[in-house]
Amino acid sequence: MTTIDRRDIDFLLHEVLDLDGLFARPRFADHDRGSVAAMLDTAEKLAADHFLPHAAKLDANEPSFDGETVHIIPEVKQALDAYCAAGFMAAHADYALGGMQLPHTVSLAVSAFFSAANISTAGYPFLTRAAANVIAKFGTEGQKAAFLGPMLEGRYFGTMALTEPGAGSGLADLKTAAVPAADGTYLITGNKIFISAGEHGLSENIVHLVLARIKGAPAGVKGISLFIVPKLLGDGRRNDVRLAGLIHKMGYRGTTSTMLNFGEGGGATGYLVGEAHRGLGYMFHMMNEARVGVGLGAAVLGYAGYRVALDYARTRLQGRPPRAKDPGLPPVPIVEHADVKRMLLASKAYVEGALALCLLGSRLVDDSETAATPAARDRAFQLLDLLTPVIKSWPSQYGLAANDLAIQVHGGYGYTREYPVERLYRDNRLNPIHEGTFGIQSLDLLGRKILGDQGKALALLAEEMFATINAAPPSLSEEAGALGGAIALVSETVAVLGRAAAGNRLDEALANSAVFLELMGHVVVAWLWLRMAIAAEAGIGAAAGDAAAFLDGKRRACRYFFRWELPKIRPQAALLQSLDQTCAEMPDAAFG
Amino acid sequence: MTTIDRRDIDFLLHEVLDLDGLFARPRFADHDRGSVAAMLDTAEKLAADHFLPHAAKLDANEPSFDGETVHIIPEVKQALDAYCAAGFMAAHADYALGGMQLPHTVSLAVSAFFSAANISTAGYPFLTRAAANVIAKFGTEGQKAAFLGPMLEGRYFGTMALTEPGAGSGLADLKTAAVPAADGTYLITGNKIFISAGEHGLSENIVHLVLARIKGAPAGVKGISLFIVPKLLGDGRRNDVRLAGLIHKMGYRGTTSTMLNFGEGGGATGYLVGEAHRGLGYMFHMMNEARVGVGLGAAVLGYAGYRVALDYARTRLQGRPPRAKDPGLPPVPIVEHADVKRMLLASKAYVEGALALCLLGSRLVDDSETAATPAARDRAFQLLDLLTPVIKSWPSQYGLAANDLAIQVHGGYGYTREYPVERLYRDNRLNPIHEGTFGIQSLDLLGRKILGDQGKALALLAEEMFATINAAPPSLSEEAGALGGAIALVSETVAVLGRAAAGNRLDEALANSAVFLELMGHVVVAWLWLRMAIAAEAGIGAAAGDAAAFLDGKRRACRYFFRWELPKIRPQAALLQSLDQTCAEMPDAAFG
Repeated sequence: MTTIDRRDIDFLLHEVLDLDGLFARPRFADHDRGSVAAMLDTAEKLAADHFLPHAAKLDANEPSFDGETVHIIPEVKQALDAYCAAGFMAAHADYALGGMQLPHTVSLAVSAFFSAANISTAGYPFLTRAAANVIAKFGTEGQKAAFLGPMLEGRYFGTMALTEPGAGSGLADLKTAAVPAADGTYLITGNKIFISAGEHGLSENIVHLVLARIKGAPAGVKGISLFIVPKLLGDGRRNDVRLAGLIHKMGYRGTTSTMLNFGEGGGATGYLVGEAHRGLGYMFHMMNEARVGVGLGAAVLGYAGYRVALDYARTRLQGRPPRAKDPGLPPVPIVEHADVKRMLLASKAYVEGALALCLLGSRLVDDSETAATPAARDRAFQLLDLLTPVIKSWPSQYGLAANDLAIQVHGGYGYTREYPVERLYRDNRLNPIHEGTFGIQSLDLLGRKILGDQGKALALLAEEMFATINAAPPSLSEEAGALGGAIALVSETVAVLGRAAAGNRLDEALANSAVFLELMGHVVVAWLWLRMAIAAEAGIGAAAGDAAAFLDGKRRACRYFFRWELPKIRPQAALLQSLDQTCAEMPDAAFG
Repeated sequence: MTTIDRRDIDFLLHEVLDLDGLFARPRFADHDRGSVAAMLDTAEKLAADHFLPHAAKLDANEPSFDGETVHIIPEVKQALDAYCAAGFMAAHADYALGGMQLPHTVSLAVSAFFSAANISTAGYPFLTRAAANVIAKFGTEGQKAAFLGPMLEGRYFGTMALTEPGAGSGLADLKTAAVPAADGTYLITGNKIFISAGEHGLSENIVHLVLARIKGAPAGVKGISLFIVPKLLGDGRRNDVRLAGLIHKMGYRGTTSTMLNFGEGGGATGYLVGEAHRGLGYMFHMMNEARVGVGLGAAVLGYAGYRVALDYARTRLQGRPPRAKDPGLPPVPIVEHADVKRMLLASKAYVEGALALCLLGSRLVDDSETAATPAARDRAFQLLDLLTPVIKSWPSQYGLAANDLAIQVHGGYGYTREYPVERLYRDNRLNPIHEGTFGIQSLDLLGRKILGDQGKALALLAEEMFATINAAPPSLSEEAGALGGAIALVSETVAVLGRAAAGNRLDEALANSAVFLELMGHVVVAWLWLRMAIAAEAGIGAAAGDAAAFLDGKRRACRYFFRWELPKIRPQAALLQSLDQTCAEMPDAAFG
């Protein structure tokens, strides 16, 4: 089983996303193509040697809880020890924190190898880094010394403990309580659910980032504070955090999903992060990056399925060419059948498009932090903020679609647990749900990022797209023209929705936001396919053999996307512009 | 957990499909609305009492093989014994065979309750009836006495043993061999795979219908014969059929999927069905009905997911209406959120549309057998034959889409194995694969049923659709007009593809057949939604309360389908008419 074709990563980093441009910045001055290549080599090998081999075993032998201890197959800890020993946990962090100041773009490319090989095992460092980022940004020096340092060393792992049984998408209803203690700490009581990596024996300690309400805080989201609640206190005693049970999931089974009870013995000791009542803002500050990470996981799970299906299609013999009436002819590899090519090309366009989208997102994270001027950093942040719901959602939808096609390419075999494609599908089904569901992302995009912003960030994105259109060679004029038309369609649609919102019809404008998110996703990915095709055109003249075929594949996937996928936005735009309320007006009783 | 809302079945049988018209025919003279209602009552209760309760347990405790015996939780046999005792196995069969001569339309409605409750347990009688139908049609009197009788009594179960490790979609490559013995029987040797219900202890005997090649037969599909190969011979000895192993599937886990070795000890005794070399034709003769059954399974799995999601959405409290800024207000049931309504209304339109499609299919089976005149029977058969790939595929795609939405409505809970929606999803993922994959169905539809038929059956279907358009009241003129436009679009598209085929470009015309199948499915289901809406309009004036809300729901789902779904066919038609070869021309090396 293959994971990631290194050529795709190199093509995106160097030919599409201009990684060289980052090396010129002071923060990344010690890096160059050679050092990045070495890092990717290590990731590729480590993922193949330590993550991939136990992926199926971990799925079939999910973590269990005997009332005392969570049992996880030993390969997980061995893999994570090797991961931490190679320095990957801290690679993106500052030198001062023991990191390597690796660009986020490269960090995300590194993650691609691990997540494609074994998303469940890769889940532990993913969550740890996300939690570490919050502490690095908003924690006190003492908190950094006590928690961040060991996290970046890989000795402590982290969690994000937001969700409660009655508060998933609706964080305003969080009930976990925090009561100030005399020593400046807080006593935390409450129940959390779906906390990934909430209990395990993989690290010396577990650092929970817990959202809770300080007694007397305002109702709603403006009364939520953020706390560090470690599993073990500084003196080594157990904190008052108890595992109430493990949740058994469809997939992603190797990352424990937990129900945690805080304060059953009177109160878990928590340390306030930043100021009181501002917890949700701190979490959201890091959310763009976390959501890019979720998108990447979805993209590479789809990608892994595509590669497995491609290998299968090249070796599985079945049927004959359409015109071959002689049954004495030998059967052909199924990759030669038009409908199999359709499924594979669709998958390729989805997963490589999704990968490009996520790496673009991480490039925007880098730019928002390290671009030369405040204006450039601000522009990058606005683009990132606008695109985050798309980067989280489109790969979650279309990476999954690729996993579905990978099963279909395999026929009956794909439905069995003897082949990896059904597992990859089950793993990926989580991604449209966690870190903000598809519906929540769509409201974020249309309501907050576009209508709430008067379309300013959207105008910046259109500028970027027009720059690509202008850079397209004549051989890509069909695609360039179609992208221009798509931008116009988005503008018209946003104008109609904006007028409705301004005319006291905001609910109606937002009612079909999910359709808008799908539409935007396709336009953004079409843009990225055009960028990839331009890069391929630029390189193909000097290429031969496999390298030429590789670049030709990019051009063809671009063509597929523009001919087969982008036209789907027209009925979507028409529906949105009609402000159709068929769904929104459905009375409960009429559902049956 | 609900399974099927009886009102949907009654509405379809009586208001849409004119079941009364069947009672006038001699074969069904003993039936009336009252007897059918009693039968449905029994099915509903039996499914709820004996099939539903062990569905989750069976999934979590799939059948196992210890090298000697297949172990299945005892609830399965208890349920099937109750099913057979109630006479359901033979309900559709002739009186002479101990049956009740129930219309296929009613039989399928009965199946809906069992399959929605527990598709795995319902799989055993489904396969038995399919095998029994072949023997009833093509077997000798001796074969009927030896096998068909006990099958209809529920003492013997059946299988369809077609697929081999190297021959799935490509049946031409079947290798299983049959050698004539002196006594008129045959010795069968070969390996079969994915044989559902191929081994178990649920019945006294298992009757395998095996496709094999008689020594010296022509190559390809014209040299395949059909054999009855029982697990136990007449004298009670084991036949030479050995279970090589169970296959572990993503879902549908309770129906054993087996690898069977025939003739390891020298040869399994087989009895030729009908004439030599005509086996595939016999199998295909029964395929329409079997494929309608697959479609029904897919429809009701989606339906069951929808009902669970609807119940959940009505009780789960989360969030507030869009304009409610006061966090002190209590949270609302999520069914009140526009995006949840969207998911539920889409699901409703998919699963109720799919159910209507399948019941229409079974009504056509009835008409093809019992309509008053040969011309009417022939017309019904042509329509059935044309629609079969749609009836098999559209529910497999959109029932599954409803299962996906049911997970999404549940949020994180939907991804856990504590709720049934993830199981229903996993179960349903089989349906686009078995009994002819989506790709195979699309070639059957476009290549054989339309282009190969010069569009004659399609013209009959258009006639039926125009009759519906003409019957639409003014309140449904938007939908009636849109259906007319869709028919025109199909005609244009078929004309373009037909010209290409006639112009020696058949491969190009067929290259995108999967898109054509999707397009046709949406047009056919739009037609059925218009029929349902017309029936709802006719009844709503006299209805009140829940009954009025029920009929109103049909009108609204129809509106949803025409506004949200049908417009998707325009880009599909454009793509097809362009004869785009982007996929078909993709070189293997360019995939990467």
